[in-house]
Amino acid sequence: MSVLRIASTSDPGSAAGALANSFREEGRAELQAIGPRAVNQAVKCIAVARGYLASSGVDLYFVPSFVEVDMSGETRTGIRFMVRSRTPVPALRPRRRADTPRQSPEPDAPTAEAWQDI
Amino acid sequence: MSVLRIASTSDPGSAAGALANSFREEGRAELQAIGPRAVNQAVKCIAVARGYLASSGVDLYFVPSFVEVDMSGETRTGIRFMVRSRTPVPALRPRRRADTPRQSPEPDAPTAEAWQDI
Repeated sequence: MSVLRIASTSDPGSAAGALANSFREEGRAELQAIGPRAVNQAVKCIAVARGYLASSGVDLYFVPSFVEVDMSGETRTGIRFMVRSRTPVPALRPRRRADTPRQSPEPDAPTAEAWQDI
Repeated sequence: MSVLRIASTSDPGSAAGALANSFREEGRAELQAIGPRAVNQAVKCIAVARGYLASSGVDLYFVPSFVEVDMSGETRTGIRFMVRSRTPVPALRPRRRADTPRQSPEPDAPTAEAWQDI
C-alpha cells in the first residue's frame, strides 16, 4: 500500500483527490504527517475526501498512531493515519482525467512529483 | 454527549485520560479543535487514548468533519472528531481515583475547570 506523505504546504483539496484515488485503487489508504501543520492538513484532507467518496457509498474513518520516521539520519516522530471505510468498499476504480466532468468538485490528483516529502 | 474542547496548550496525555473516561461513560466521544496546533493535539490525544482503552477491548477510530464555531460573535471553522470503537464497547465505567493504581500509565482526567475553551 502506498503511503501519502502530507506536508504543511499540501493543499487539502488536492491531497484529498490523491487519497480518494488511492482508496479507489486499493480499498484503503495511509497518510503520514510530521508536525502540527502537516497533521492539520492531513485531517482536513480526510474530511474533504469523505465528501468525495460518500457518493460511492464509502464511509471513511481513520485510526491514528505514532510513527518514527528517519529524516536525513535524524529520527522524528510523526503521525500515521490508517484510512479505512466503515461500509464495505464497492469495486471502485481510480478516476481518470477522461471521465472527470469539467464541473467536478474533485480536483485532479497531483502527480507523485508534486508531493513534498515529509 | 459531552464535547471535549482541545486547545493548542492541552496536554495530550491528560486529554486522553478525559477522552477515555468520557468513552467509558457513554461508549463514544466527541472532540473539537480550532487551529493547526489544537488539531494536532487532538490527534495525539486520540492516539494515546487508543492505548489506554485497548486493554478493555476498545479499538478507537475517528471521523473528522468541519464545524462552524461561534467565538465571541466571530464564526470560525474548526474540526469535529467523532470518536467511536471498531469493536463492540463492553460495559465500562469511568475510572475513579480510588481504583486507579499508583503506577497506572493513565493520568487522572483534568477537571472541567482545567479545560481551556477553544
